[in-house]
Amino acid sequence: MPELNHLSDLERNITVILVRPENPENIGLVARNMKNTGFQNLSLVYKGPLPPKAYVTAVHAHNILDEVQFFPGVKQATENQQMVFAASSKPRKNFSFMSLKESVEKIFRFPRSTKIGLLFGNERTGLTSEELVHSNFKFTIPQVSPQPSYNLGSAVLLTLFRIFTFPSFSGEAQEDKPLSREKQEECIHQILNKLEQKRFIHETNKRHVTQMIYDLIGRMCITDKDRRLLLALFSKGIR
Amino acid sequence: MPELNHLSDLERNITVILVRPENPENIGLVARNMKNTGFQNLSLVYKGPLPPKAYVTAVHAHNILDEVQFFPGVKQATENQQMVFAASSKPRKNFSFMSLKESVEKIFRFPRSTKIGLLFGNERTGLTSEELVHSNFKFTIPQVSPQPSYNLGSAVLLTLFRIFTFPSFSGEAQEDKPLSREKQEECIHQILNKLEQKRFIHETNKRHVTQMIYDLIGRMCITDKDRRLLLALFSKGIR
Repeated sequence: MPELNHLSDLERNITVILVRPENPENIGLVARNMKNTGFQNLSLVYKGPLPPKAYVTAVHAHNILDEVQFFPGVKQATENQQMVFAASSKPRKNFSFMSLKESVEKIFRFPRSTKIGLLFGNERTGLTSEELVHSNFKFTIPQVSPQPSYNLGSAVLLTLFRIFTFPSFSGEAQEDKPLSREKQEECIHQILNKLEQKRFIHETNKRHVTQMIYDLIGRMCITDKDRRLLLALFSKGIR
Repeated sequence: MPELNHLSDLERNITVILVRPENPENIGLVARNMKNTGFQNLSLVYKGPLPPKAYVTAVHAHNILDEVQFFPGVKQATENQQMVFAASSKPRKNFSFMSLKESVEKIFRFPRSTKIGLLFGNERTGLTSEELVHSNFKFTIPQVSPQPSYNLGSAVLLTLFRIFTFPSFSGEAQEDKPLSREKQEECIHQILNKLEQKRFIHETNKRHVTQMIYDLIGRMCITDKDRRLLLALFSKGIR
């Protein structure tokens, strides 16, 4: 694919993931915005194929739509990523949030070859808490007033533009590459099982504590070494 | 209007001007993007009234559409502004261009009460050279490849978001407030007349030199003092 030549490692390793998008024109606008800012990989949590309307707004970006990957859920769409950032305009009780600016700075602390997923929710509902657990970080894009939220294409554009124009694009990575989300979540499941065995997690606090543990371990972006330490801590260290 | 309370002086004094927009959905998207980033004033070079379709995409931003001002041409739409920035993706021979980043830095060098117009052209054709002469500065928004250009709503959004999130929002002005565009252009006309009288401008170079003079004097953002100096120079100093 000759048009990939101008893409940097970073842009090549970033995937935009739209979760249950409702409006096909928005999918096309996202593809156009990706083309403008140099991104290529688009995944959808969506029952394909794409309706023709998506192609109408994807001016000069049909190739991005032709290579869209479809997934049945957020879990499957994110399991091969190593860091997942989820956009959300609504703060939630069990999750911590950072700004768009902080998120992009975070991205640049990791090696350029880290596989990064950017998760954007449905136009009306956004991402549910059950979908948010599959991300390492949640971020909000600054806006003047809570209503209206940014249009889906706008939210994607502001995020990609900030990455594309980040000033220290060539800076050195300061962190190690995390495990895949799939392996991160396996580790989280093992910890949650231990906590259930120990009755730290029980019927009444289960949803709340589970989400908080996902958020906490997610933010660590664990490597294999971290995983071994965490599992040792939770099987032996905590009684 | 209570919702104006959160607006800063700067946002109150900035007007988005869409020139011959074709697609009413884009007008609505622009209004929504303005609402998200705290801007209020929308002018259109457009034969009103707005088609109902514009309201469909202007989620929570109908009030901006209700107060749209219509103008027959760019000259009329800009004459009460004091600085006009025109977005253009195509470089032109007779005009100089700056980046979006430089444009926004420029805005913050002037007093917050300076009346600023942000000019965006038709979706397919952009701004013509005849329209560009009514601006002080021309800017381009960075993009990876020349095609496709940014969608109209996207170009407006990236510009407004950059102003809205500018880090030194409270910095001091370093420049004096310019004359209105109307007075700036009166001065340019007087200079052009002098240059025609002196045969510096003639039939064959007229279009070219006129556009270059507009660009040169435009970039000066002239005050009343500057105007007097310029007119004195061109009537007496240059022979």
